[in-house]
Amino acid sequence: MSCCHHYALAPGGDAAFTVDVSAITFGPGCLAEAGDHALRLGLQRVALFTDARLADSEHVAIVRRALADAGVDCVVYDAVEVEPTDASFLAAARFAREGDFDGFISVGGGSVIDTAKAANLYATYPADLAAYVNAPLGEARAVPGPLKPHIACPTTSGTGAECTGIAIFDWVARGVKTGIVSRLLRPTLALIDPVTTWTLPRTVVAASGFDVLSHALESYTALPHTCRAKAERPSLRPMSQGANPWSDFGCEKALQLTGQYLERAVRDAADHEARNGMMWAATLAGIAFGNAGVHLPHGMAYAVAGGVRDYRAPDYPPEHPMVPHGMSVIVNAPAVFRFTADACPERHLQAAGWLGAETRGATAADAGEIVAQRLIALMQACDIPNGVGGVGYHAGDIPSLTAGAWAQQRLVKNAPKAVDEGHLSTLFRNALQYW
Amino acid sequence: MSCCHHYALAPGGDAAFTVDVSAITFGPGCLAEAGDHALRLGLQRVALFTDARLADSEHVAIVRRALADAGVDCVVYDAVEVEPTDASFLAAARFAREGDFDGFISVGGGSVIDTAKAANLYATYPADLAAYVNAPLGEARAVPGPLKPHIACPTTSGTGAECTGIAIFDWVARGVKTGIVSRLLRPTLALIDPVTTWTLPRTVVAASGFDVLSHALESYTALPHTCRAKAERPSLRPMSQGANPWSDFGCEKALQLTGQYLERAVRDAADHEARNGMMWAATLAGIAFGNAGVHLPHGMAYAVAGGVRDYRAPDYPPEHPMVPHGMSVIVNAPAVFRFTADACPERHLQAAGWLGAETRGATAADAGEIVAQRLIALMQACDIPNGVGGVGYHAGDIPSLTAGAWAQQRLVKNAPKAVDEGHLSTLFRNALQYW
Repeated sequence: MSCCHHYALAPGGDAAFTVDVSAITFGPGCLAEAGDHALRLGLQRVALFTDARLADSEHVAIVRRALADAGVDCVVYDAVEVEPTDASFLAAARFAREGDFDGFISVGGGSVIDTAKAANLYATYPADLAAYVNAPLGEARAVPGPLKPHIACPTTSGTGAECTGIAIFDWVARGVKTGIVSRLLRPTLALIDPVTTWTLPRTVVAASGFDVLSHALESYTALPHTCRAKAERPSLRPMSQGANPWSDFGCEKALQLTGQYLERAVRDAADHEARNGMMWAATLAGIAFGNAGVHLPHGMAYAVAGGVRDYRAPDYPPEHPMVPHGMSVIVNAPAVFRFTADACPERHLQAAGWLGAETRGATAADAGEIVAQRLIALMQACDIPNGVGGVGYHAGDIPSLTAGAWAQQRLVKNAPKAVDEGHLSTLFRNALQYW
Repeated sequence: MSCCHHYALAPGGDAAFTVDVSAITFGPGCLAEAGDHALRLGLQRVALFTDARLADSEHVAIVRRALADAGVDCVVYDAVEVEPTDASFLAAARFAREGDFDGFISVGGGSVIDTAKAANLYATYPADLAAYVNAPLGEARAVPGPLKPHIACPTTSGTGAECTGIAIFDWVARGVKTGIVSRLLRPTLALIDPVTTWTLPRTVVAASGFDVLSHALESYTALPHTCRAKAERPSLRPMSQGANPWSDFGCEKALQLTGQYLERAVRDAADHEARNGMMWAATLAGIAFGNAGVHLPHGMAYAVAGGVRDYRAPDYPPEHPMVPHGMSVIVNAPAVFRFTADACPERHLQAAGWLGAETRGATAADAGEIVAQRLIALMQACDIPNGVGGVGYHAGDIPSLTAGAWAQQRLVKNAPKAVDEGHLSTLFRNALQYW
């Protein structure tokens, strides 16, 4: 391995790692392939999941035309909520159960794709919502078997949801974001058409682009898989198995592309090379974190998004206060990487270099500050709010933010060093304001 | 994209590309996971394919023990031929059909894994041998549907067969190598334990290592997918779809690892870091060429291997004359890359650099010679025969070699420039002797 010390086997650690990848089709115009792929998967009647804003879009029209041309029946469900909730997951599942579909197509951002995953799951294997939700909030019951085919068509360059077996939602009564995780949730085919990003507003490109960046940076700096306690049986090895040589090079390319294209993609919608590049980076980072797992910035983000009071981001639906996902992640990141750098300084420096930072002559002791400064510079260039304070939190919120993040044990444990509640509290304090 | 000019869309070209990847588990000791993975796949009675040399090996013993511990019945078939033939494929299929298995496990090199693929296919969907074989030699009929689960456990760091939907054999009556190609042939799970390579003899490590190198170099320099004529329907897009941004970075990592580790892995069996690195390179190159396709060195290799007269390689079974696969490939490579360099000189230079060549100050005109010299130096360092002449061919053989290679149209058309029979003839002449 190129990084044999990083992957030295710890006592009780897992010497092996497992890779699962959705089938992917990527390219400008490929949405028009939806009908042919649906036929190949044996589909005759599909539910097309999207949201109200996209329902009349050209993207959905292209997919509907392609399905009609292929003779595949299609019923549209556009009641997906941006940042889905327990209620919106259950409503979608009801629609899926009652419609007697033989497959699913989702056209939208992570919210739409995740809702289609959940609808497919609860329609195929009905159960209380809590049944499949991550412990300790839910019961983390194993998905009983294969789901119906699902073609996921992302329209933002961010979540990578089309390549992962993860569905995230806001559990309103509990006041936190959480999710469902299973290899069996992974879409059958990711149909990724970068043309869908050419018309996205700048704040959406920025927020989703920072989600990509953080997927890659968190996966690259996650606990090495060789240091994670081995599962009782190999088939129980988790998808969030920690950093591994496979996810590493997806992270490397995603960070290089993000360093090269993020600012350009945000600044100029007509820069198709940059927007296509960010879509490809989103796919690679999705594959990487789907096989490694993210850690503290995402764990903290669940609390930041779940506890929102009155923040509304430009270019996002104005009805409800909401911190867009990628924004809720990246506001934590500079504080986190200052803290994690000493666990694997060489990886933090490499990542900073890929993102465009100057790392010549840097020592291990400089790694955290170099990453943090590069992130801050990119955040400023893309008009991201100034830390957790910038999306409406104050020092008095730290206990509740800490409790929300601490509940995300799956992510907290994937950090490259041991983390307790006191660390999380300090991280939130250090994330309140960066400049 | 980082290489947008390379992927400029040609008239009638394919703007999209498709990626399929086997599930993979990789790590020292992971052969012991075979039983648990078989159970997870629902298997109760499996055929274990291997060859006579491996049947009593510790690798096969570990897999058998793991299956027994999991309560999975297992019948061993060890009559696989190294470099399989039409007859050995059919014999294996007969065994598979008569044994009433619900799945397959292969433990061996590419010959064993490919034989298991073929046996699974012809046992599940019986047909004449020619039915599924590549045109124009065979009928290239579509595989009718999914095959039974197949866990592929490679014991050489070479073919990448565990990650591809390709099964290669020597059609003895026709005097050429050919194959069967279908996404549906791809093993369900690649279970890759690098410990299996620690005891391989040096010539096997060398020959299989050059196969890896050439998979990566050919895929990286293949015709860009955007220049391949678009299929009538997207679902007919071939696996050998040409170079694409996905396969590119598998190639990049595989070439870097090969440059770093090939000589060390050949020289010293105790250098486990190098042998593990070559196993990982083989996996990455397998994924890459499985989604891009190889071109002239492999196309020519079919003729070189198929027409063997009396060449016997050290460390290989002495019963029959045989040019080991990787050797039959790499003896063509320096001549080929001198010829193809002008189609994409920057890629040839990049690849040479990853393999360890000095490329500072090099111009596009130097690219072919720089790659060729680096390949020749590596071949000499690893005791590879001196060109096609080194494995027993003479100038008088060029017409028959040319005819054999010309029959491999799938590969010839994947070259980065137009190739006719005259070119192939010149390539063989230039490949007769390098030093």
